[in-house]
This record gives sequence, structure tokens and C-alpha cells, in this order.
Amino acid sequence: MAAINARQQLIELVHDLPKADSLVRQTAADRQNNLTKPPGSLGLLEELALWLCAWQGKAKPVLANCQTIVFAGNHGVAGRGVSAFPADVTVQMVANFKAGGAAINQLCQSAGSSLDVHALDLDRPTADFSVEPAMTWEECLDAVNRGMAAVDPDADILLLGEMGIGNTTVAAALCAALYGGEPGSWVGRGTGVDDAKMALKADLIGTALTRHADRLDDPLDCLACVGGREQAAIFGATLQARLLSKPVILDGFVCTAAAAPLHRLMPDGLDHCIVGHVSMEPGHQRLIQQLGKRALLNLDMRLGEGSGAAVALGIVKAAAAAHNDMATFAEASVAGAIDNA
Amino acid sequence: MAAINARQQLIELVHDLPKADSLVRQTAADRQNNLTKPPGSLGLLEELALWLCAWQGKAKPVLANCQTIVFAGNHGVAGRGVSAFPADVTVQMVANFKAGGAAINQLCQSAGSSLDVHALDLDRPTADFSVEPAMTWEECLDAVNRGMAAVDPDADILLLGEMGIGNTTVAAALCAALYGGEPGSWVGRGTGVDDAKMALKADLIGTALTRHADRLDDPLDCLACVGGREQAAIFGATLQARLLSKPVILDGFVCTAAAAPLHRLMPDGLDHCIVGHVSMEPGHQRLIQQLGKRALLNLDMRLGEGSGAAVALGIVKAAAAAHNDMATFAEASVAGAIDNA
Repeated sequence: MAAINARQQLIELVHDLPKADSLVRQTAADRQNNLTKPPGSLGLLEELALWLCAWQGKAKPVLANCQTIVFAGNHGVAGRGVSAFPADVTVQMVANFKAGGAAINQLCQSAGSSLDVHALDLDRPTADFSVEPAMTWEECLDAVNRGMAAVDPDADILLLGEMGIGNTTVAAALCAALYGGEPGSWVGRGTGVDDAKMALKADLIGTALTRHADRLDDPLDCLACVGGREQAAIFGATLQARLLSKPVILDGFVCTAAAAPLHRLMPDGLDHCIVGHVSMEPGHQRLIQQLGKRALLNLDMRLGEGSGAAVALGIVKAAAAAHNDMATFAEASVAGAIDNA
Repeated sequence: MAAINARQQLIELVHDLPKADSLVRQTAADRQNNLTKPPGSLGLLEELALWLCAWQGKAKPVLANCQTIVFAGNHGVAGRGVSAFPADVTVQMVANFKAGGAAINQLCQSAGSSLDVHALDLDRPTADFSVEPAMTWEECLDAVNRGMAAVDPDADILLLGEMGIGNTTVAAALCAALYGGEPGSWVGRGTGVDDAKMALKADLIGTALTRHADRLDDPLDCLACVGGREQAAIFGATLQARLLSKPVILDGFVCTAAAAPLHRLMPDGLDHCIVGHVSMEPGHQRLIQQLGKRALLNLDMRLGEGSGAAVALGIVKAAAAAHNDMATFAEASVAGAIDNA
């Protein structure tokens, strides 16, 4: 798909999103009911299998080519001291990703996923959103386009992650802008800040919401005003996956918040996405509830990078394996449930 | 290890269990704190890595050889109509396991585990525990020995599962015998029974507890009186793994209940075990609390067969991969947290 060059073009795409294939979903559900297990006894694995089938449009889903993309960005608000780590760590961690030394490298390897890393203008942080909009609309749209272009059209599933010192503050700001509520109810300790920095995060977000109040009714303006490049890129990649009817595993708080504008633009905009895990960041659970979703895993993780999505991929693969390769009652000559009627 | 031929020999083994290697655990914890992530940010993955290291006695755990064992047994109490499925299904499902068509086959394949199936005298169900002890002590000890002998001494980790029509009733009876409480508080729908069968399960367990009351202070007698062959075998395999300092992933309600006598005999008897998932059977959550444990997954599964343990193996492998192969801050030239002191 060619790059989007106008806001109206983006709006039109969002208002004409492909839907899941309900016929394939029904075929898959019929198969589940004939597999050699009590109906429903594989729980969420059965739901995951149907979700894969419906979005891939295949009665037996394929997970041969799994793509994980980590988008990295730097944030003006990091200069206010909202993180336990210096902003230099963003570029250092990108180097670590490229050298294969980070958690996400090992977790992708373990789960069987490729890993692409896109560093977005790390030498050019966004503006401090407590003073001015984080990005111009042009900067935001450029990042959305880079996110869309990063998606492999041949991938069977897309996993999204992020890196950016200060970006739990950005995620909390996005959530407060999109869904309302006190800034303090969306902030957490991120990489491990103390109470004073937690309060600072909430204060800066409050200032930003007041400053940009006249633009925050529009989810795309929320992204530009209080988001960042990696957030806009994740939004773009999530949209692109939807346009390609491709299932997506979102990661933690920052990643889910970055995709959330699509939900605010269209209530079913994230139906092709699952949330891989619920983060220790308290805002994540709250956001997941807003999305009407249930996270697959709860492992007290709070790293980002796509780490929770990569761990969740193993569960999704298990679901597909059971769905695709189990014998039916008839094939295995196993008796069904006793008819009590 | 030669077969155990006397109760006293078994008691002596249980009272002299190997402990985890605390020095290796400390070495592993030191490594975790130097890996390129905020300390603790991988949550339970870090805990899992330390658990593996401590039980394997290795600063970098190995998961090359993962063994899953499914033990199958038949139960006299199944003749009372406590399951939604006929008792013939036990032998039919064993054939399905051997032919590769069941859920556990696909889940082991997906997670990278071997699968061994041990059918324990399926043509000779245990006695109906509401009328007489399910097994003689000799029958029980024979099943314990078969469980112990089934463990591959070279396996890096052991996953346990079971198959046996009627065995959620057996698990509930074991829990009520071991931990007390109303029988009704331990029973659930199993493969999918209605309210009347749930009440029948509780009634039969109540009758059994009264009948065997004089023997239920002894956890081994609980196993013989209200357990079954696959429960005794799982107990034996769990004990054998401990004697070999081998980590274990338990599965759902039936599997965890089968291992529980080891906890009742020694409070730290299941320290080498994790619970792979929490089942939809309400008794499982209650039992996990009694054990002081936290299940790794909550996917609304209720199949048994070792299915939840096999799905959990992917998480444990992810934990080991991150621990073993991540770069340290020094190796990757990544800055640590800002010192606020």
C-alpha cells in the first residue's frame, strides 16, 4: 500500500476496516466440537484458534511466519526526569536488539518469531508534551506510515513491541487523553521510579491535557499531541495488519495504549488484536477493561520490547496445534458424552 | 533406584528429600540483576529461571530433554455415574494418545516435549471408594513404584498428566481427605456434568470419608483409600523427580491432587514443582492455595492429560532462554538506572 498522505485518507481507511470471516469461524467452531475432548475443555485455546481462523480466513490456521516488530522512539518529556534510566538507553538498547542481546531477542527465538527493529529518529526526540504538541501532524503521519510499511504482508501473525525511555508517561498521557480519568490513575512505576517521580508523571500529564484540551476529542490528535513516534508507528502497524486481515498480538501498557486510538476511532477497530499479557503497570489493566479484552498472560512482567507478546505467541501456537492436528471422535473411535436426554 | 517394597522405606525417603541448591540460586539471581533490563521487569520469568537453576543445580538451566508422562487409570466410583463420559473412554483415549491424536500430543509437539503414556491396569478398575478402600496398600505401592520407574533420569524437566474417567471425583475426595472441608467445596463439573451429578459426587465422597475415617490421618492411606492408580503413579513420579532434584510441572486439579500427599507428608515436599495452570475445576484454586503456590497460567482449561503443563512449558522455556542468553549491561554497554542517592 502506498503511503498515506492526507488525514482524510487515513479516516476513510479506518471507517472501512475488513471484518473477521464469520463463515470460517463457524467451520472452525464445528471442528472444535468434534475433536477428542469435552466441548470447551481447552478454554481460551479454543477461542484463540477460532480467532486465528476468522482473521486468517482459514479453517486451519497457519503460524509458519511470525513477525515481531519493535519500534523505538525518544521523548521530549524524558528530559523532565520521568524515568529511572537516562534517555541514552533508548539508542543503547536498540544496539542491544540488533546485536541479539536483549530479552526480546531470546523470547522471539524461543517462541519462533522473526524480529525487526525500527529506530525512529532517535536523535530527534519529540517535543515535551507538557509545553507543546509532541509531534506536528506531519511528523505523526510520517511515523504512522513507517509503522504501516514495516508490516510484512506475508506474515501469518504480527507481534508488536516498543522501546523508548519515558514512554510509560506517554502511554499514561494517551490513555488519559483517550479515555479520561485522573492522570494519577493511569501512571505507574515504569522501569522503577519512586513516589516523587510518579507524582511528577501525573503532574506533567495534567499540564499536557490542559494545554492541548481543544484537540483531545480527536484520537488522531491525541496521538500527535501526547504520543510519540513509536506510538504512532504501532498505531500504523496495527491498522496495516487490520487492512490485511492479519491477527496481532499486542504487548503491554505502552503498546496497547499506542493501538488504542484505533479503538476510539472505531469500537471494533482492535478486534483483530489480542493483548498478550497484562503488565504490572496499573494503567494496563484499566486500559484492557476499556477495550473489553482479557489478557492472555499475567506474569508480573513490565519490560516492554514486545516481551509479553512473544511469550504469548507460544500459547497461540499451542492453540493452533491443538485445533489443526487433534483427531475427531470419529477418527479416533472415542465415545462421546453420555446422552442424558 | 530399585522398587520400594515397604511402607517404612517410602516414609524414610520422604523424610530425607534433597533441597534446592541455594548457592546456585544466588549465582543465578546475581546474573538476573546484571541482565539488560530493569531489575525484576521480567516478573515470574525471573522466578522461573531461578527455580530451574536451583533444582537443576546449574547457573544456566538446560531444557533440551523435556519428558511428559500421562498416567491412565480406571475407577470403581465411575460405575456410579459421576462422569459425563462412559468409562470405556479411558482406554479409547489411551489409544488416541498412542496414535498421536489427542490434545496432549499436539501440545507436547508444540512445546517440544517427549510424551510417554502409561496405562495402569485399565481392565481392573479400583474398588468403589464409597464402599471399600479403592486400593489395597500393595496395589497402591505397586502404582507408586510404576510412577517412579517411569521417570527418565536424564530428563531436564518432568511434566505430569493423567487420564481416567471419573477422576475429578477421585481428586476431590483426595483433597477433602488431605485438607478437610465439605466435599461439595472440592467438587466441580469435571468433563461437564449437571447439578444432580455434582451433588452425587459430593455425596459419594462424604460416604467415603465417613467409611475410611480411621485411616485418613495418614496421607499415604488417603491415596490408597480414595485415590487411584494414576494418582499413586503421579505421586511416585513426583517423588522420584524430587529424589533426582528434577523440576516438575504439574497439570490441573487431578494431577495436583495426586501430588498433594507429598505436601501433607512434608511441607516442602512440592518445592521442586510448579503448577502449570489453574483449572476451571473450582477445587484446583483451593488446592493451589493450600500448597502456597501460584499457577503460571489461567486459560480456563479443564481437560487434564497434562495439557496445562505442556502449555506452561513454553513459558518455562522462555524464562530459561532469557536467563541464559541475554547480554549483561556491561556486555551490551547499556547504562544502568540513574543513581538517585
